[in-house]
Amino acid sequence: MKKIDIGKKILIENEKYAFENILFLAERKKLCLNIISSPGSGKTTILVRTISDLKGKIKVGVIEGDIQTDIDAERIRATEAPAIQINTEGACHLSALQISRALKQLPVEDLDLIFIENVGNLVCPSAFELGEAGKIVVLSVAEGDDKPVKYPAIFAKSKVLLINKIDLLTGGQVDFDIEKVKADACKLNKGIKIFPISAKTGEGMDDWYNWLLKSVETNSIYQ
Amino acid sequence: MKKIDIGKKILIENEKYAFENILFLAERKKLCLNIISSPGSGKTTILVRTISDLKGKIKVGVIEGDIQTDIDAERIRATEAPAIQINTEGACHLSALQISRALKQLPVEDLDLIFIENVGNLVCPSAFELGEAGKIVVLSVAEGDDKPVKYPAIFAKSKVLLINKIDLLTGGQVDFDIEKVKADACKLNKGIKIFPISAKTGEGMDDWYNWLLKSVETNSIYQ
Repeated sequence: MKKIDIGKKILIENEKYAFENILFLAERKKLCLNIISSPGSGKTTILVRTISDLKGKIKVGVIEGDIQTDIDAERIRATEAPAIQINTEGACHLSALQISRALKQLPVEDLDLIFIENVGNLVCPSAFELGEAGKIVVLSVAEGDDKPVKYPAIFAKSKVLLINKIDLLTGGQVDFDIEKVKADACKLNKGIKIFPISAKTGEGMDDWYNWLLKSVETNSIYQ
Repeated sequence: MKKIDIGKKILIENEKYAFENILFLAERKKLCLNIISSPGSGKTTILVRTISDLKGKIKVGVIEGDIQTDIDAERIRATEAPAIQINTEGACHLSALQISRALKQLPVEDLDLIFIENVGNLVCPSAFELGEAGKIVVLSVAEGDDKPVKYPAIFAKSKVLLINKIDLLTGGQVDFDIEKVKADACKLNKGIKIFPISAKTGEGMDDWYNWLLKSVETNSIYQ
Protein backbone atom coordinates (compact mmCIF):
# COMPACT_ATOMS: atom_id res chain seq x y z
CA MET A 1 0.00 0.00 0.00
CA LYS A 2 2.80 2.41 0.86
CA LYS A 3 4.29 2.03 -2.62
CA ILE A 4 0.99 3.01 -4.22
CA ASP A 5 0.73 6.08 -1.98
CA ILE A 6 4.24 7.24 -2.95
CA GLY A 7 3.49 6.68 -6.62
CA LYS A 8 0.23 8.61 -6.32
CA LYS A 9 1.96 11.50 -4.55
CA ILE A 10 4.56 11.83 -7.32
CA LEU A 11 1.82 11.75 -9.98
CA ILE A 12 -0.33 14.34 -8.15
CA GLU A 13 2.69 16.65 -7.76
CA ASN A 14 3.36 16.19 -11.49
CA GLU A 15 -0.28 16.96 -12.41
CA LYS A 16 0.01 20.31 -10.62
CA TYR A 17 2.80 21.42 -12.96
CA ALA A 18 1.06 19.83 -15.94
CA PHE A 19 -1.98 21.99 -15.24
CA GLU A 20 0.24 25.09 -15.04
CA ASN A 21 1.66 24.17 -18.46
CA ILE A 22 -1.85 23.73 -19.88
CA LEU A 23 -2.75 27.25 -18.70
CA PHE A 24 0.55 28.71 -19.99
CA LEU A 25 -0.09 27.21 -23.45
CA ALA A 26 -3.82 28.01 -23.51
CA GLU A 27 -3.23 31.70 -22.67
CA ARG A 28 -0.86 31.90 -25.64
CA LYS A 29 -3.01 29.66 -27.90
CA LYS A 30 -0.07 27.37 -28.65
CA LEU A 31 -0.45 23.71 -29.55
CA CYS A 32 1.85 21.24 -27.76
CA LEU A 33 2.25 17.54 -28.63
CA ASN A 34 4.11 14.91 -26.59
CA ILE A 35 5.84 12.26 -28.72
CA ILE A 36 6.41 8.90 -27.06
CA SER A 37 7.99 5.66 -28.31
CA SER A 38 10.65 3.03 -27.72
CA PRO A 39 14.24 4.04 -28.37
CA GLY A 40 15.04 4.05 -32.08
CA SER A 41 11.53 4.15 -33.54
CA GLY A 42 12.46 7.35 -35.39
CA LYS A 43 11.02 10.19 -33.29
CA THR A 44 13.82 12.66 -34.08
CA THR A 45 13.90 11.75 -37.77
CA ILE A 46 10.12 12.33 -37.97
CA LEU A 47 10.52 15.72 -36.30
CA VAL A 48 13.43 16.80 -38.49
CA ARG A 49 11.55 15.91 -41.69
CA THR A 50 8.28 17.42 -40.45
CA ILE A 51 9.93 20.72 -39.47
CA SER A 52 11.82 20.92 -42.79
CA ASP A 53 8.83 20.03 -44.98
CA LEU A 54 6.49 22.47 -43.20
CA LYS A 55 8.99 25.35 -43.20
CA GLY A 56 7.17 28.53 -44.28
CA LYS A 57 3.83 27.09 -43.18
CA ILE A 58 4.23 26.73 -39.41
CA LYS A 59 6.90 27.63 -36.88
CA VAL A 60 7.91 24.72 -34.68
CA GLY A 61 9.93 24.51 -31.46
CA VAL A 62 11.09 21.33 -29.77
CA ILE A 63 11.76 20.23 -26.20
CA GLU A 64 14.09 17.23 -26.35
CA GLY A 65 14.17 14.68 -23.54
CA ASP A 66 17.14 12.34 -23.30
CA ILE A 67 18.89 10.54 -20.50
CA GLN A 68 22.23 11.87 -21.70
CA THR A 69 23.75 13.72 -24.70
CA ASP A 70 22.34 16.57 -26.80
CA ILE A 71 22.56 14.66 -30.08
CA ASP A 72 18.83 15.02 -30.74
CA ALA A 73 18.63 18.74 -29.97
CA GLU A 74 21.56 19.31 -32.33
CA ARG A 75 19.72 17.43 -35.09
CA ILE A 76 16.66 19.66 -34.53
CA ARG A 77 18.75 22.86 -34.47
CA ALA A 78 20.23 21.91 -37.85
CA THR A 79 16.73 22.63 -39.27
CA GLU A 80 16.98 26.12 -37.70
CA ALA A 81 14.11 25.34 -35.31
CA PRO A 82 14.74 26.25 -31.67
CA ALA A 83 15.33 23.22 -29.41
CA ILE A 84 15.77 22.94 -25.65
CA GLN A 85 17.57 19.81 -24.46
CA ILE A 86 16.59 18.26 -21.14
CA ASN A 87 18.94 15.57 -19.79
CA THR A 88 17.14 13.40 -17.24
CA GLU A 89 20.43 11.87 -15.96
CA GLY A 90 18.99 8.37 -15.69
CA ALA A 91 15.29 9.10 -15.22
CA CYS A 92 13.03 7.21 -17.61
CA HIS A 93 10.52 9.96 -18.49
CA LEU A 94 10.10 13.74 -18.62
CA SER A 95 8.22 15.52 -15.84
CA ALA A 96 5.83 18.47 -16.09
CA LEU A 97 8.19 20.58 -13.97
CA GLN A 98 11.00 20.04 -16.49
CA ILE A 99 8.63 21.09 -19.29
CA SER A 100 7.51 24.15 -17.34
CA ARG A 101 11.14 25.31 -17.15
CA ALA A 102 11.86 24.47 -20.80
CA LEU A 103 8.78 26.37 -22.03
CA LYS A 104 10.22 29.50 -20.44
CA GLN A 105 13.46 29.05 -22.41
CA LEU A 106 11.72 28.59 -25.79
CA PRO A 107 10.61 31.64 -27.83
CA VAL A 108 7.01 30.42 -27.42
CA GLU A 109 5.38 33.66 -28.65
CA ASP A 110 7.01 33.19 -32.08
CA LEU A 111 5.93 29.55 -32.45
CA ASP A 112 2.79 27.81 -33.73
CA LEU A 113 3.56 24.34 -32.45
CA ILE A 114 5.73 22.85 -29.71
CA PHE A 115 6.80 19.22 -29.88
CA ILE A 116 8.02 17.45 -26.77
CA GLU A 117 10.18 14.45 -27.68
CA ASN A 118 10.04 12.24 -24.60
CA VAL A 119 12.76 9.82 -23.39
CA GLY A 120 12.77 6.63 -25.49
CA ASN A 121 10.52 4.39 -23.40
CA LEU A 122 7.14 2.88 -24.27
CA VAL A 123 6.13 2.41 -20.62
CA CYS A 124 6.91 5.14 -18.07
CA PRO A 125 6.23 8.36 -20.06
CA SER A 126 2.61 7.29 -20.60
CA ALA A 127 1.85 7.90 -16.89
CA PHE A 128 3.19 11.47 -16.72
CA GLU A 129 1.04 14.27 -18.13
CA LEU A 130 3.16 17.19 -19.28
CA GLY A 131 0.41 19.66 -20.13
CA GLU A 132 0.35 18.67 -23.79
CA ALA A 133 -2.79 18.85 -25.96
CA GLY A 134 -2.20 15.24 -26.96
CA LYS A 135 0.21 12.34 -27.07
CA ILE A 136 1.61 10.93 -30.32
CA VAL A 137 2.86 7.34 -30.11
CA VAL A 138 5.40 6.15 -32.69
CA LEU A 139 5.83 2.46 -33.52
CA SER A 140 8.46 1.32 -36.01
CA VAL A 141 7.50 -1.72 -38.11
CA ALA A 142 10.82 -3.27 -37.05
CA GLU A 143 9.48 -3.51 -33.47
CA GLY A 144 6.77 -6.01 -34.43
CA ASP A 145 2.98 -5.93 -34.66
CA ASP A 146 2.28 -7.18 -31.11
CA LYS A 147 3.18 -3.92 -29.37
CA PRO A 148 -0.34 -2.41 -28.88
CA VAL A 149 -1.41 -5.61 -27.11
CA LYS A 150 1.76 -5.87 -25.01
CA TYR A 151 2.11 -2.17 -24.10
CA PRO A 152 -1.54 -1.04 -24.11
CA ALA A 153 -1.37 2.10 -21.90
CA ILE A 154 0.33 4.41 -24.37
CA PHE A 155 -1.79 3.22 -27.31
CA ALA A 156 -4.95 3.78 -25.23
CA LYS A 157 -3.90 7.34 -24.30
CA SER A 158 -2.55 8.68 -27.63
CA LYS A 159 -4.44 10.80 -30.13
CA VAL A 160 -2.23 9.70 -33.02
CA LEU A 161 -0.29 6.55 -33.86
CA LEU A 162 2.52 6.99 -36.38
CA ILE A 163 3.54 3.59 -37.80
CA ASN A 164 7.06 4.48 -38.98
CA LYS A 165 9.70 2.85 -41.23
CA ILE A 166 7.09 1.38 -43.62
CA ASP A 167 9.84 1.46 -46.27
CA LEU A 168 11.20 -1.67 -44.54
CA LEU A 169 8.02 -3.55 -45.54
CA THR A 170 8.63 -3.23 -49.30
CA GLY A 171 11.64 -5.57 -49.35
CA GLY A 172 9.67 -8.18 -47.40
CA GLN A 173 12.50 -8.27 -44.82
CA VAL A 174 10.21 -7.34 -41.95
CA ASP A 175 7.06 -9.24 -40.93
CA PHE A 176 4.50 -6.70 -39.74
CA ASP A 177 0.74 -6.84 -40.16
CA ILE A 178 -0.41 -3.20 -40.37
CA GLU A 179 -4.10 -4.17 -40.33
CA LYS A 180 -3.61 -6.13 -37.08
CA VAL A 181 -1.92 -3.12 -35.44
CA LYS A 182 -4.69 -0.80 -36.62
CA ALA A 183 -7.36 -3.16 -35.28
CA ASP A 184 -5.58 -3.67 -31.92
CA ALA A 185 -4.95 0.07 -31.47
CA CYS A 186 -8.59 0.91 -32.32
CA LYS A 187 -9.81 -1.70 -29.85
CA LEU A 188 -7.88 0.13 -27.11
CA ASN A 189 -8.70 3.60 -28.39
CA LYS A 190 -11.62 4.09 -30.75
CA GLY A 191 -10.73 7.63 -31.84
CA ILE A 192 -7.01 7.16 -32.49
CA LYS A 193 -5.75 8.53 -35.83
CA ILE A 194 -3.30 6.19 -37.52
CA PHE A 195 -0.78 7.29 -40.15
CA PRO A 196 1.59 4.71 -41.69
CA ILE A 197 4.69 6.71 -42.68
CA SER A 198 8.33 6.56 -43.63
CA ALA A 199 10.21 9.56 -42.31
CA LYS A 200 13.13 8.34 -44.44
CA THR A 201 11.43 8.21 -47.87
CA GLY A 202 8.57 10.63 -47.11
CA GLU A 203 5.85 8.08 -47.89
CA GLY A 204 2.59 8.80 -46.07
CA MET A 205 3.89 12.01 -44.48
CA ASP A 206 1.33 14.25 -46.26
CA ASP A 207 -1.60 12.83 -44.27
CA TRP A 208 0.31 13.46 -41.04
CA TYR A 209 1.14 17.02 -42.19
CA ASN A 210 -2.52 17.71 -43.07
CA TRP A 211 -3.60 16.55 -39.61
CA LEU A 212 -0.90 18.70 -37.99
CA LEU A 213 -1.71 21.82 -40.04
CA LYS A 214 -5.41 21.51 -39.29
CA SER A 215 -4.66 21.00 -35.58
CA VAL A 216 -2.50 24.13 -35.52
CA GLU A 217 -5.07 26.13 -37.52
CA THR A 218 -7.94 25.20 -35.19
CA ASN A 219 -5.72 24.98 -32.06
CA SER A 220 -7.37 21.64 -31.40
CA ILE A 221 -6.50 18.01 -31.98
CA TYR A 222 -10.17 17.00 -32.10
CA GLN A 223 -10.91 17.03 -35.83
CA MET B 1 16.23 14.47 -1.07
CA LYS B 2 13.14 12.53 -0.08
CA LYS B 3 12.77 11.17 -3.63
CA ILE B 4 16.32 9.80 -3.55
CA ASP B 5 15.68 8.15 -0.17
CA ILE B 6 12.52 6.41 -1.44
CA GLY B 7 14.34 5.24 -4.56
CA LYS B 8 17.24 3.96 -2.46
CA LYS B 9 14.88 2.09 -0.12
CA ILE B 10 13.17 0.31 -3.03
CA LEU B 11 16.56 -0.64 -4.51
CA ILE B 12 17.92 -1.90 -1.15
CA GLU B 13 14.76 -3.98 -0.61
CA ASN B 14 15.21 -5.38 -4.12
CA GLU B 15 18.88 -6.21 -3.51
CA LYS B 16 17.89 -8.35 -0.53
CA TYR B 17 15.80 -10.64 -2.75
CA ALA B 18 18.42 -10.49 -5.51
CA PHE B 19 20.98 -11.86 -3.04
CA GLU B 20 18.59 -14.66 -2.04
CA ASN B 21 18.25 -15.55 -5.73
CA ILE B 22 22.04 -15.57 -6.14
CA LEU B 23 22.32 -18.05 -3.24
CA PHE B 24 19.42 -20.19 -4.57
CA LEU B 25 21.10 -20.45 -7.99
CA ALA B 26 24.64 -20.90 -6.61
CA GLU B 27 23.58 -23.82 -4.36
CA ARG B 28 22.13 -25.56 -7.42
CA LYS B 29 24.98 -24.48 -9.76
CA LYS B 30 22.54 -23.03 -12.29
CA LEU B 31 23.40 -20.20 -14.64
CA CYS B 32 20.89 -17.36 -14.96
CA LEU B 33 21.01 -14.54 -17.54
CA ASN B 34 18.85 -11.40 -17.60
CA ILE B 35 17.98 -10.19 -21.11
CA ILE B 36 17.20 -6.49 -21.48
CA SER B 37 16.27 -4.37 -24.48
CA SER B 38 13.74 -1.97 -25.97
CA PRO B 39 10.39 -3.42 -27.04
CA GLY B 40 10.67 -5.23 -30.36
CA SER B 41 14.43 -5.75 -30.55
CA GLY B 42 13.86 -9.50 -30.87
CA LYS B 43 14.45 -10.92 -27.37
CA THR B 44 11.81 -13.66 -27.63
CA THR B 45 12.83 -14.61 -31.18
CA ILE B 46 16.46 -14.92 -30.02
CA LEU B 47 15.37 -17.16 -27.13
CA VAL B 48 13.12 -19.35 -29.28
CA ARG B 49 15.88 -19.92 -31.84
CA THR B 50 18.57 -20.44 -29.18
CA ILE B 51 16.48 -23.01 -27.28
CA SER B 52 15.58 -24.89 -30.48
CA ASP B 53 19.11 -24.90 -31.90
CA LEU B 54 20.67 -26.05 -28.59
CA LYS B 55 18.08 -28.76 -27.92
CA GLY B 56 19.88 -31.93 -26.83
CA LYS B 57 22.90 -29.90 -25.67
CA ILE B 58 21.48 -27.85 -22.78
CA LYS B 59 18.15 -27.63 -21.00
CA VAL B 60 16.77 -24.12 -20.80
CA GLY B 61 13.95 -22.58 -18.75
CA VAL B 62 12.59 -19.06 -19.17
CA ILE B 63 11.02 -16.44 -16.90
CA GLU B 64 9.05 -14.06 -19.10
CA GLY B 65 8.36 -10.50 -17.97
CA ASP B 66 5.62 -8.54 -19.70
CA ILE B 67 3.29 -5.75 -18.70
CA GLN B 68 0.34 -7.74 -20.01
CA THR B 69 -0.41 -10.89 -22.07
CA ASP B 70 1.32 -14.28 -22.09
CA ILE B 71 2.16 -14.17 -25.80
CA ASP B 72 5.90 -14.52 -25.14
CA ALA B 73 5.61 -17.43 -22.67
CA GLU B 74 3.41 -19.25 -25.22
CA ARG B 75 6.09 -18.77 -27.90
CA ILE B 76 8.71 -20.24 -25.53
CA ARG B 77 6.47 -23.19 -24.53
CA ALA B 78 6.06 -24.05 -28.24
CA THR B 79 9.75 -25.09 -28.11
CA GLU B 80 8.82 -27.44 -25.20
CA ALA B 81 10.96 -25.41 -22.77
CA PRO B 82 9.26 -24.52 -19.47
CA ALA B 83 8.27 -20.86 -19.17
CA ILE B 84 6.83 -18.86 -16.28
CA GLN B 85 4.99 -15.68 -17.27
CA ILE B 86 5.11 -12.67 -14.95
CA ASN B 87 2.68 -9.85 -15.75
CA THR B 88 3.85 -6.61 -14.14
CA GLU B 89 0.46 -4.90 -14.72
CA GLY B 90 1.99 -1.60 -15.72
CA ALA B 91 5.36 -1.76 -13.95
CA CYS B 92 8.32 -1.06 -16.20
CA HIS B 93 10.78 -3.69 -14.94
CA LEU B 94 10.95 -7.06 -13.15
CA SER B 95 11.84 -7.17 -9.45
CA ALA B 96 13.98 -9.72 -7.61
CA LEU B 97 10.97 -10.75 -5.50
CA GLN B 98 9.04 -11.67 -8.65
CA ILE B 99 12.02 -13.72 -9.85
CA SER B 100 12.34 -15.44 -6.44
CA ARG B 101 8.72 -16.65 -6.76
CA ALA B 102 9.09 -17.65 -10.42
CA LEU B 103 12.26 -19.67 -9.69
CA LYS B 104 10.23 -21.79 -7.29
CA GLN B 105 7.71 -22.56 -10.06
CA LEU B 106 10.35 -23.61 -12.61
CA PRO B 107 11.78 -27.19 -12.57
CA VAL B 108 15.19 -25.65 -11.78
CA GLU B 109 16.87 -28.96 -10.83
CA ASP B 110 16.29 -30.27 -14.38
CA LEU B 111 17.68 -27.16 -16.10
CA ASP B 112 21.17 -26.01 -17.10
CA LEU B 113 20.33 -22.41 -17.89
CA ILE B 114 17.59 -19.96 -16.92
CA PHE B 115 16.88 -16.93 -19.07
CA ILE B 116 14.97 -14.00 -17.65
CA GLU B 117 13.36 -11.94 -20.42
CA ASN B 118 12.78 -8.55 -18.84
CA VAL B 119 10.02 -6.05 -19.74
CA GLY B 120 10.82 -4.23 -23.00
CA ASN B 121 12.55 -1.13 -21.68
CA LEU B 122 16.13 0.03 -22.17
CA VAL B 123 16.12 2.25 -19.07
CA CYS B 124 14.47 0.99 -15.86
CA PRO B 125 15.45 -2.73 -15.80
CA SER B 126 19.14 -1.77 -15.75
CA ALA B 127 18.79 -0.52 -12.15
CA PHE B 128 17.19 -3.66 -10.69
CA GLU B 129 19.46 -6.63 -9.95
CA LEU B 130 17.53 -9.91 -10.13
CA GLY B 131 20.24 -12.28 -8.91
CA GLU B 132 21.39 -13.12 -12.42
CA ALA B 133 24.97 -14.08 -13.28
CA GLY B 134 24.96 -11.44 -15.99
CA LYS B 135 22.90 -9.09 -18.12
CA ILE B 136 22.57 -9.48 -21.89
CA VAL B 137 21.57 -6.32 -23.75
CA VAL B 138 19.96 -6.67 -27.18
CA LEU B 139 20.03 -3.85 -29.74
CA SER B 140 18.29 -4.20 -33.09
CA VAL B 141 20.01 -2.45 -36.00
CA ALA B 142 16.64 -0.83 -36.79
CA GLU B 143 16.95 1.15 -33.54
CA GLY B 144 19.98 3.10 -34.76
CA ASP B 145 23.66 3.19 -33.84
CA ASP B 146 23.44 6.03 -31.29
CA LYS B 147 21.87 3.92 -28.54
CA PRO B 148 24.98 3.07 -26.42
CA VAL B 149 25.74 6.80 -26.16
CA LYS B 150 22.12 7.78 -25.42
CA TYR B 151 21.27 4.93 -23.00
CA PRO B 152 24.69 4.19 -21.46
CA ALA B 153 23.69 2.47 -18.18
CA ILE B 154 22.58 -0.86 -19.63
CA PHE B 155 25.53 -1.03 -22.06
CA ALA B 156 27.92 -0.32 -19.18
CA LYS B 157 26.42 -3.09 -17.02
CA SER B 158 25.95 -5.93 -19.54
CA LYS B 159 28.31 -8.84 -20.10
CA VAL B 160 27.09 -9.40 -23.66
CA LEU B 161 25.70 -7.16 -26.39
CA LEU B 162 23.69 -8.94 -29.08
CA ILE B 163 23.34 -6.70 -32.15
CA ASN B 164 20.24 -8.27 -33.70
CA LYS B 165 18.47 -8.10 -37.09
CA ILE B 166 21.72 -7.74 -39.05
CA ASP B 167 19.82 -9.28 -41.99
CA LEU B 168 18.27 -5.80 -42.40
CA LEU B 169 21.73 -4.40 -43.23
CA THR B 170 22.18 -6.49 -46.39
CA GLY B 171 19.48 -4.68 -48.39
CA GLY B 172 21.00 -1.32 -47.44
CA GLN B 173 17.60 -0.21 -46.12
CA VAL B 174 18.90 0.49 -42.62
CA ASP B 175 21.77 2.86 -41.79
CA PHE B 176 23.70 1.37 -38.88
CA ASP B 177 27.43 1.57 -38.25
CA ILE B 178 28.33 -1.65 -36.38
CA GLU B 179 31.91 -0.50 -35.77
CA LYS B 180 30.67 2.71 -34.12
CA VAL B 181 28.38 0.71 -31.81
CA LYS B 182 31.20 -1.68 -30.92
CA ALA B 183 33.56 1.22 -30.16
CA ASP B 184 30.94 3.12 -28.11
CA ALA B 185 29.95 0.00 -26.13
CA CYS B 186 33.60 -0.88 -25.42
CA LYS B 187 34.27 2.69 -24.25
CA LEU B 188 31.51 2.21 -21.63
CA ASN B 189 32.42 -1.39 -20.84
CA LYS B 190 35.85 -2.70 -21.76
CA GLY B 191 35.06 -6.40 -21.28
CA ILE B 192 31.69 -6.56 -23.06
CA LYS B 193 31.33 -9.44 -25.56
CA ILE B 194 29.62 -8.35 -28.78
CA PHE B 195 27.87 -10.74 -31.17
CA PRO B 196 26.22 -9.37 -34.33
CA ILE B 197 23.38 -11.82 -35.09
CA SER B 198 20.18 -12.38 -36.97
CA ALA B 199 17.79 -14.55 -34.98
CA LYS B 200 15.68 -14.69 -38.16
CA THR B 201 18.29 -16.05 -40.60
CA GLY B 202 20.62 -17.62 -38.02
CA GLU B 203 23.62 -15.55 -39.12
CA GLY B 204 26.19 -15.09 -36.34
CA MET B 205 24.27 -17.27 -33.87
CA ASP B 206 27.05 -19.89 -33.58
CA ASP B 207 29.41 -17.50 -31.76
CA TRP B 208 26.64 -16.66 -29.30
CA TYR B 209 25.91 -20.38 -28.81
CA ASN B 210 29.60 -21.15 -28.20
CA TRP B 211 29.77 -18.43 -25.56
CA LEU B 212 26.56 -19.76 -23.95
CA LEU B 213 27.68 -23.40 -23.95
CA LYS B 214 31.05 -22.50 -22.43
CA SER B 215 29.32 -20.37 -19.79
CA VAL B 216 27.01 -23.25 -18.86
CA GLU B 217 29.88 -25.75 -18.87
CA THR B 218 32.04 -23.63 -16.56
CA ASN B 219 29.07 -22.13 -14.69
CA SER B 220 30.69 -18.76 -15.23
CA ILE B 221 30.29 -15.91 -17.67
CA TYR B 222 33.91 -14.82 -17.24
CA GLN B 223 35.66 -16.53 -20.12
